Amino acid sequence: MVQEWQEGQLRPFQDYLAGEEPLEIRAGGRSISVTMRTPGHDQELAAGFLLTEGLIQRREQILSIAPASDCKATEQGNIIVVELDPSALAGLDAIRRNFYASSSCGICGKASIDSVRLRGIPAPNPAFRVSAETLCRLPESLRTGQAIFERTGGLHSAALFTADGQLVAQREDIGRHNAVDKLAGWGLLNGRLPLSDCVLMVSGRGGFEILQKAAVAGVPVVASVSAPSSLAVRLARDLRMTLVGFLRGRRFVVYAGEERIVL
Amino acid sequence: MVQEWQEGQLRPFQDYLAGEEPLEIRAGGRSISVTMRTPGHDQELAAGFLLTEGLIQRREQILSIAPASDCKATEQGNIIVVELDPSALAGLDAIRRNFYASSSCGICGKASIDSVRLRGIPAPNPAFRVSAETLCRLPESLRTGQAIFERTGGLHSAALFTADGQLVAQREDIGRHNAVDKLAGWGLLNGRLPLSDCVLMVSGRGGFEILQKAAVAGVPVVASVSAPSSLAVRLARDLRMTLVGFLRGRRFVVYAGEERIVL
Repeated sequence: MVQEWQEGQLRPFQDYLAGEEPLEIRAGGRSISVTMRTPGHDQELAAGFLLTEGLIQRREQILSIAPASDCKATEQGNIIVVELDPSALAGLDAIRRNFYASSSCGICGKASIDSVRLRGIPAPNPAFRVSAETLCRLPESLRTGQAIFERTGGLHSAALFTADGQLVAQREDIGRHNAVDKLAGWGLLNGRLPLSDCVLMVSGRGGFEILQKAAVAGVPVVASVSAPSSLAVRLARDLRMTLVGFLRGRRFVVYAGEERIVL
Repeated sequence: MVQEWQEGQLRPFQDYLAGEEPLEIRAGGRSISVTMRTPGHDQELAAGFLLTEGLIQRREQILSIAPASDCKATEQGNIIVVELDPSALAGLDAIRRNFYASSSCGICGKASIDSVRLRGIPAPNPAFRVSAETLCRLPESLRTGQAIFERTGGLHSAALFTADGQLVAQREDIGRHNAVDKLAGWGLLNGRLPLSDCVLMVSGRGGFEILQKAAVAGVPVVASVSAPSSLAVRLARDLRMTLVGFLRGRRFVVYAGEERIVL
């Protein structure tokens, strides 16, 4: 129970909070990442993180994925252990070399874009089309499906839609990158990659890392209710993805790849 | 120039984008972090990051801080080099040990809170008070000072206010953690820590990491226009900080430390 203040009055208030707990991803016998996330769909989050950060490329590289069994009750579910194929373990070391290689060749927007290219991402579907009218319906569909947000006001949401606006999958998280990783992991674990016939709609800003994750998952169109960043626009144009921002009511702005939008 | 679609009409549209570029922080001769950020106040961001992530504790541990001089034109300003006192270098290794120690003692909310305590943070000022009326004025002050957001819609903002609502400092960034790190770095580099007479107001959600950074900087009251997370509330209560959420119009919710709010 918390206190609500309104117009000079203070009263007890039953609030629902968005859950947040750390998640450790272990792969190849080591700790790869500890990130704060909203519990739920954790195996998707771990698989999606490994994919979109370039540590794995294919479903078959994951030999097993499960919560750690040798942990204490307090950390139950907060550790996901991934057993990787030896090819992926080699890739893990290669990524590290590439990371330092790209670091040494430049800390700048171009090097960041090059580092995404290095991952051998699929070319975004050039034949995919979505209508402006369908795009305008997505924000409402995103809100309708956003179960926890209604109660807590505290979660980011990301969802995949078909070209005619049908919801394919939706995930929520306190971290907007995590919501996208959960979708990418859903696609990977269910044999749905590349997501070349989907629009990705996100509740937050369209920053570089959101675009990068969408690119790795093969999504051709990314839409957000808010603004993209300069580097997200550069990445979308460079990779020939479609990027839509400020999708609200009956208005949006097309920053890249307008050929995929049917007027 | 981009394309704006509105009510079936498409027309050219001059849009302003929030800047995003990678920033590498180098300290003790190694790369500590590469993070996407909005350029500007980069030395504050680097100093604040080192402070709030527990790598340094005092201004004097920074012997020098400056953009790298041996870099190419494209990465100009994207690399900040920090020369640290030997005591901080030793601390850097200790933090690494503590990190693994706290990892092995548990990946859970309690361990996350314990890891903040391990940093020897200042006790948040128990005598600080702010009135409900002053709190209600802060969102408008935050918006007024938010120069870039008005044009781009794409930046998070964080600001420090005195107990009577005077703006002390404000920073913007595409990453909400970065905006808070820039403020913490401003405080550190200008000898203003601990920020024990300030309210921190953020435009986004009040998650665990925002609270953690505020705690390290000594801020007693954190307010946000949106919802906090469950773990942020636990951390605020544990450290005896004041946490206010949903600060909009003439309403807010007090999640912790209500004794600092004067009705």
